[in-house]
Amino acid sequence: MEFISIIIGSKNDYNVMKACVDTFETFGVSYEIIISSAHRSPERTKNYIKDAEAKGAQAFIAAAGMAAHLAGAVAASTVKPVIGVPMGGSELSGVDALYSTVQMHAGMPVATVAIGQPGAINSAYLAMQILALRNGELAIKLLEDRVAKAKKVEMDSLEIERVL
Amino acid sequence: MEFISIIIGSKNDYNVMKACVDTFETFGVSYEIIISSAHRSPERTKNYIKDAEAKGAQAFIAAAGMAAHLAGAVAASTVKPVIGVPMGGSELSGVDALYSTVQMHAGMPVATVAIGQPGAINSAYLAMQILALRNGELAIKLLEDRVAKAKKVEMDSLEIERVL
Amino acid sequence: MEFISIIIGSKNDYNVMKACVDTFETFGVSYEIIISSAHRSPERTKNYIKDAEAKGAQAFIAAAGMAAHLAGAVAASTVKPVIGVPMGGSELSGVDALYSTVQMHAGMPVATVAIGQPGAINSAYLAMQILALRNGELAIKLLEDRVAKAKKVEMDSLEIERVL
Amino acid sequence: MEFISIIIGSKNDYNVMKACVDTFETFGVSYEIIISSAHRSPERTKNYIKDAEAKGAQAFIAAAGMAAHLAGAVAASTVKPVIGVPMGGSELSGVDALYSTVQMHAGMPVATVAIGQPGAINSAYLAMQILALRNGELAIKLLEDRVAKAKKVEMDSLEIERVL
Amino acid sequence: MEFISIIIGSKNDYNVMKACVDTFETFGVSYEIIISSAHRSPERTKNYIKDAEAKGAQAFIAAAGMAAHLAGAVAASTVKPVIGVPMGGSELSGVDALYSTVQMHAGMPVATVAIGQPGAINSAYLAMQILALRNGELAIKLLEDRVAKAKKVEMDSLEIERVL
Amino acid sequence: MEFISIIIGSKNDYNVMKACVDTFETFGVSYEIIISSAHRSPERTKNYIKDAEAKGAQAFIAAAGMAAHLAGAVAASTVKPVIGVPMGGSELSGVDALYSTVQMHAGMPVATVAIGQPGAINSAYLAMQILALRNGELAIKLLEDRVAKAKKVEMDSLEIERVL
Amino acid sequence: MEFISIIIGSKNDYNVMKACVDTFETFGVSYEIIISSAHRSPERTKNYIKDAEAKGAQAFIAAAGMAAHLAGAVAASTVKPVIGVPMGGSELSGVDALYSTVQMHAGMPVATVAIGQPGAINSAYLAMQILALRNGELAIKLLEDRVAKAKKVEMDSLEIERVL
Amino acid sequence: MEFISIIIGSKNDYNVMKACVDTFETFGVSYEIIISSAHRSPERTKNYIKDAEAKGAQAFIAAAGMAAHLAGAVAASTVKPVIGVPMGGSELSGVDALYSTVQMHAGMPVATVAIGQPGAINSAYLAMQILALRNGELAIKLLEDRVAKAKKVEMDSLEIERVL
Repeated sequence: MEFISIIIGSKNDYNVMKACVDTFETFGVSYEIIISSAHRSPERTKNYIKDAEAKGAQAFIAAAGMAAHLAGAVAASTVKPVIGVPMGGSELSGVDALYSTVQMHAGMPVATVAIGQPGAINSAYLAMQILALRNGELAIKLLEDRVAKAKKVEMDSLEIERVL
Repeated sequence: MEFISIIIGSKNDYNVMKACVDTFETFGVSYEIIISSAHRSPERTKNYIKDAEAKGAQAFIAAAGMAAHLAGAVAASTVKPVIGVPMGGSELSGVDALYSTVQMHAGMPVATVAIGQPGAINSAYLAMQILALRNGELAIKLLEDRVAKAKKVEMDSLEIERVL
Repeated sequence: MEFISIIIGSKNDYNVMKACVDTFETFGVSYEIIISSAHRSPERTKNYIKDAEAKGAQAFIAAAGMAAHLAGAVAASTVKPVIGVPMGGSELSGVDALYSTVQMHAGMPVATVAIGQPGAINSAYLAMQILALRNGELAIKLLEDRVAKAKKVEMDSLEIERVL
Repeated sequence: MEFISIIIGSKNDYNVMKACVDTFETFGVSYEIIISSAHRSPERTKNYIKDAEAKGAQAFIAAAGMAAHLAGAVAASTVKPVIGVPMGGSELSGVDALYSTVQMHAGMPVATVAIGQPGAINSAYLAMQILALRNGELAIKLLEDRVAKAKKVEMDSLEIERVL
Repeated sequence: MEFISIIIGSKNDYNVMKACVDTFETFGVSYEIIISSAHRSPERTKNYIKDAEAKGAQAFIAAAGMAAHLAGAVAASTVKPVIGVPMGGSELSGVDALYSTVQMHAGMPVATVAIGQPGAINSAYLAMQILALRNGELAIKLLEDRVAKAKKVEMDSLEIERVL
Repeated sequence: MEFISIIIGSKNDYNVMKACVDTFETFGVSYEIIISSAHRSPERTKNYIKDAEAKGAQAFIAAAGMAAHLAGAVAASTVKPVIGVPMGGSELSGVDALYSTVQMHAGMPVATVAIGQPGAINSAYLAMQILALRNGELAIKLLEDRVAKAKKVEMDSLEIERVL
Repeated sequence: MEFISIIIGSKNDYNVMKACVDTFETFGVSYEIIISSAHRSPERTKNYIKDAEAKGAQAFIAAAGMAAHLAGAVAASTVKPVIGVPMGGSELSGVDALYSTVQMHAGMPVATVAIGQPGAINSAYLAMQILALRNGELAIKLLEDRVAKAKKVEMDSLEIERVL
Repeated sequence: MEFISIIIGSKNDYNVMKACVDTFETFGVSYEIIISSAHRSPERTKNYIKDAEAKGAQAFIAAAGMAAHLAGAVAASTVKPVIGVPMGGSELSGVDALYSTVQMHAGMPVATVAIGQPGAINSAYLAMQILALRNGELAIKLLEDRVAKAKKVEMDSLEIERVL
């Protein structure tokens, strides 16, 4: 079975990453979500990755804050695509998490998205774009979502627009 | 035919992105590379994306510097995965390109990698990880590359290590 | 008919950009305002620009946050002056929007103003300064506004000043 | 006579701002250029602005580095559009000049462009876009320049592109 | 009569600069405070400086936020010491004001203190240190203040300290 | 008697540093805590360090904000390990304290931990790791804490996890 | 046997970390140095740590650049003190490595020192301060080094000082 | 005898601070310069300050880089004005030294000037402005310098200016 695996570094990150989960629910995409830490439970993280791969995980989403090593640690344990979501809310407003996630050395990429909630949502979209490469139905849903978003812009505009 | 499409924003970016091309050559992965700009040639960019998708492009790599809008513009024109490489070398050392590439609004992700050459190489690795989801041969090459990299670390270590 | 065209990237930006609209109202300057996005509705954005130009738009104001590509996208579609307002409020406090707006490549300028509300107001002033080049009445209003602002400083000072 | 007035804060800035001058020469646009400082020669700066306005200056370009107050000082002396070019090369790589130029208080805009040479060139383009509002010939040149730039992208691409 | 002259750029800055005024009151040091702006009331600023110097101002304190040009503008109008207080509270948390105040070109110093309230208080202390060079009584008060501050540390410590 | 000495720069820092104290209490590790300042009470600071060393202090923890010189000043007065905790909450969100604490010149190290509360807790852990080098009982407690933390991750996960 | 273990993330880091090694040589302190990577050779890193601990490693020094996860990964594998040296030289001048090293979550400290060479030297000093807690001879050497450094300051001063 | 006392933190800083010394020489102002460190020679620093005050030092200039504590340490030892010059050239380009110098707590000001050479020169100007409060001859020299600087601007301008 094909699915996306979400790993979040601590319980606090769930509030933000719920937007990722909700996106998968909306599109009817299978996912797993667990809490596991690069530093506090490295064995659990590694074992989970192996299990998830065996069960059919197609990509991993890792969300962490501060010195956010989780996505890099996941990337070191798989050659599946790894998407990193830098959590905000630290004293450094997530710049620490962004740099810790995106500035990976050559050969060990983390597909980094925006800090905080927009990134949480985009991690789901990016994972779905990867799945959609061999899932035509999902590809169509993503295209329909684009159309809906463009329409939403027009609807929003009507509420405030003034045209001569 | 399945391939990866690389778009770079200006001729100057080629020196850095050559490391991306070389990585594909090393792994024997098909790719296209063109120069096209989000601002100077937006029509060409959009038309190219449609053509590339029709020909079999599985993912796009977009490299640009400063107010790096190219990856975002590509992301707006396709629901295929888009990988953004922020170019360094500006007065702001690529922080401008990094923020312009990674901080995308919800629903329109760019898979961002490191600034400059490490990012150029990682964009190729990330693209290959996506291809490898349905290319077992490539997946094996990526796993072999991991083994080789681990061995390389040991070889490098021998040159300088001192152990009691 | 001569007017200024305001494009904002999302409904959330309206709260801040209302200060721009109010400034035009105060000075009796014609304007249009719509919501349109560089990424979610690129066609709408481009079509609107062409229509607005045909109707007499003299300059464009584009307001967006995060990876703020809107002003650059507008700049790519017209040779009329484009004023960019970086929205604050992101995890990166608008530095992302500032860099994404101001660091445009040579040949494709965006006239960037301050982050958030001061920039929203200044985008209107800058647009009016451009219009005033061939509108003597507006030029006089702008000069009177300067006098009023200087007087306001004196009035404000009286409330707190202590002079020996 | 209509022209653009360029004020640079010190002799060192000329190397960078030569790209602005060259752009005006290429397009056959009239300009003046002088050195004057917000702090070392404030009277000269103010007098020059009045004289330039009387002679027909349509917009001002001000280039300065570090605590770059020049553009703001010019903006305080005229209601003509003022374009600010933050100079790089300081210990802070021009971030100081960027913030000092762009973060103007409400009512006193400076149209800020990119740090350093790209900004020098863009200050000329922005000024020409303003002039072109009532100079059809110049507007056509700007449109032709866009076409040429798009073509240049294609020519550049041919040197490196590889298409399947 | 010898006194310190405080100029603040807008009414909003008074809340923070009240801590400066209060410090002078505590030490019984004469001061003036007015609102005047580098951009909105440049003539008033310049005239005030001349008047204040004639009346006996020994140093100037200038407080402003964002593109904080006020201290630099004061420095350009006098060879008396000028102390700059960068105001916080902008989208950029006062980094813009700090860079705009401290990064002055050679020959035109601004004695810059900390962002916000600590800086407001320190601007008063720094001014008093200058006055104390020829005011022995004030020098003694400053030394007594140091003793009191050291004692305060001990008192504060008693509330929380635990010693073995 | 062996203990850890905590010095905090001002009473305000106690709220954050209480997490350090609590950690020592949890592990049953002896500590002292006082308030003393690098600038307001330099003699007290120096004398305290000598006394603490004589009594058996094995390491020092110094917590300060803004231009955080306290840890460096302690480091200059002892060759015992000095742990620096940068306090957040300033206009610059603790980046000032971080740089002031970590960027020590060669030969005079400060062992710097994270900004704010995570750093407060980590300063205690780091100090205990040092003590544990010759305290087997404490070493075992630290190992048990690791096991507990890993278990805590699993417990937290159960509250939110969804596994296929 | 007691010694310090140095792990560097790549061969390139050796040029900088040679200053660490040289410091140990100068003081006659036993050390090991190997290259091992958090991502490319995670097993090797973990195994090495266990072996080193068994052989008598008292503390670990980990040096890495960019998204510098090495020190954190080491910290996750031991309760011995871990000293992190952020490498400079990246596009982000080592700020990425600094944040990735210092901003560790509560319970998992990394004792972070300065970016680049000063940090390389200070990692050795910090490690020696820890060893000196139970090595009186080394403690005396560290105190003598302080005296020598103070004398060096006086000698250096003589070369340039001018005293009235 | 009245003079200014310059303290630099290390021999390397002399290259930059020579511009400070040269400025005093040009104006014929008495000064002392020594090397002394806040951390390596704290006693020497404190003793020197007392001696210098006794001999007639009117203000102190302190130059240091990285975690630049020198100016703060000097400020803690005197109630004379202390001018801080943040040295550039570190991995963090002097931002570390700037924050460490300017962000002093309330009651303990350091008059901070620009990073690097412009700051070195401005520290001398600021010191002279303080001396000139009771040295009419020096005040006149400073005013003449302003006139010369304004004239220099005009001369520089002639080399490049083009006026219609």
